[in-house]
Amino acid sequence: MDVLVPFAGRDPKTRLGNTLSSDERRAIAASMRRDVCEAIRDAGYEPTVLSTAPIDADVPVVVDERSLSVAVNDRLDPPMAVVMADLPLATPEALTRIFDADGDVVIAPGLGGGTNVLLVRHPEFRVDYHGASVRDHRRAATEIGATIETVDSFRLAVDVDETADFVEVLLHTDGRTAQWLEDVGFRLRVDGGRVGIERA
Amino acid sequence: MDVLVPFAGRDPKTRLGNTLSSDERRAIAASMRRDVCEAIRDAGYEPTVLSTAPIDADVPVVVDERSLSVAVNDRLDPPMAVVMADLPLATPEALTRIFDADGDVVIAPGLGGGTNVLLVRHPEFRVDYHGASVRDHRRAATEIGATIETVDSFRLAVDVDETADFVEVLLHTDGRTAQWLEDVGFRLRVDGGRVGIERA
Repeated sequence: MDVLVPFAGRDPKTRLGNTLSSDERRAIAASMRRDVCEAIRDAGYEPTVLSTAPIDADVPVVVDERSLSVAVNDRLDPPMAVVMADLPLATPEALTRIFDADGDVVIAPGLGGGTNVLLVRHPEFRVDYHGASVRDHRRAATEIGATIETVDSFRLAVDVDETADFVEVLLHTDGRTAQWLEDVGFRLRVDGGRVGIERA
Repeated sequence: MDVLVPFAGRDPKTRLGNTLSSDERRAIAASMRRDVCEAIRDAGYEPTVLSTAPIDADVPVVVDERSLSVAVNDRLDPPMAVVMADLPLATPEALTRIFDADGDVVIAPGLGGGTNVLLVRHPEFRVDYHGASVRDHRRAATEIGATIETVDSFRLAVDVDETADFVEVLLHTDGRTAQWLEDVGFRLRVDGGRVGIERA
């Protein structure tokens, strides 16, 4: 089974722009992508990165400048999994729950309505990542008579879009992304019972 | 096995104060608590609510005005589970993963470092919910030689503290809390590809 890892190669993680420079955003995006690809490999599959621009990587890369949904649908060849590149909490164990799940369409929801991991076994299914995609993907699966399985995973639900998400990376991982965050000075801050993030 | 559900009976969910009135905060807190207690019952256990003030409830309630950790530790009688009352995404299936897990201490982490569900089978373990409690509970378990099992669940990780969390309730549940949110006018808003919340 092929595993696609879509990646914004040109200007990644713009919502981190308030705390990270452009170079830093590229660095953390690459760290997360590498963590995700390693977890996929350790789960027994070979990732292919689907990037909007050429990148340096030690896994196969295909470049497609078009929008995410168009680029994925153009390559959708069931059975196929699509794993977002910004899931540094992903572990082989969590991904294996997806890869081993029954269902014509298997979904790991992301926080905020996204579809962080998707496994497609039905030939008529098409992705649409815009908006509340987890809801739209459920509807699309139902409309074509595909069975749906949902994998209930915290590790696959947390995508890193904003600085506050660094808390989860530092608390629950020790991969490249956590190391990068520590190297550039990010630390957990416990303040009045709540956990935040600060940069030294 | 006893299952405790700690609940702030007096002034719940203060961080929802920017969008909800004091009465509304009490109402949504009660809805969430009832959803959680129902999920616990459907998983085959009888919840006991541990409230800081007297409340109306159709499950046993014990009132203890002291702080959360002190009140829980005073009643900790392994094996015992502690399930936070603000987890409206909790399902019997997700809770069963906790109740059936091996380990002297079983933890479902919450977003932001909390410990949303905890199952204690070790007689020396004590809780400390202040700060990054998931980290502190792991350390405490290690210090007493207790084995730790972590349950990787999105449904148990999402506690509702802020208005943005309503997105998850509306997308992934249809219980009392989702119904209450809809009744008072909350709707999903998809805007520029991101999912937010609005009140009619």
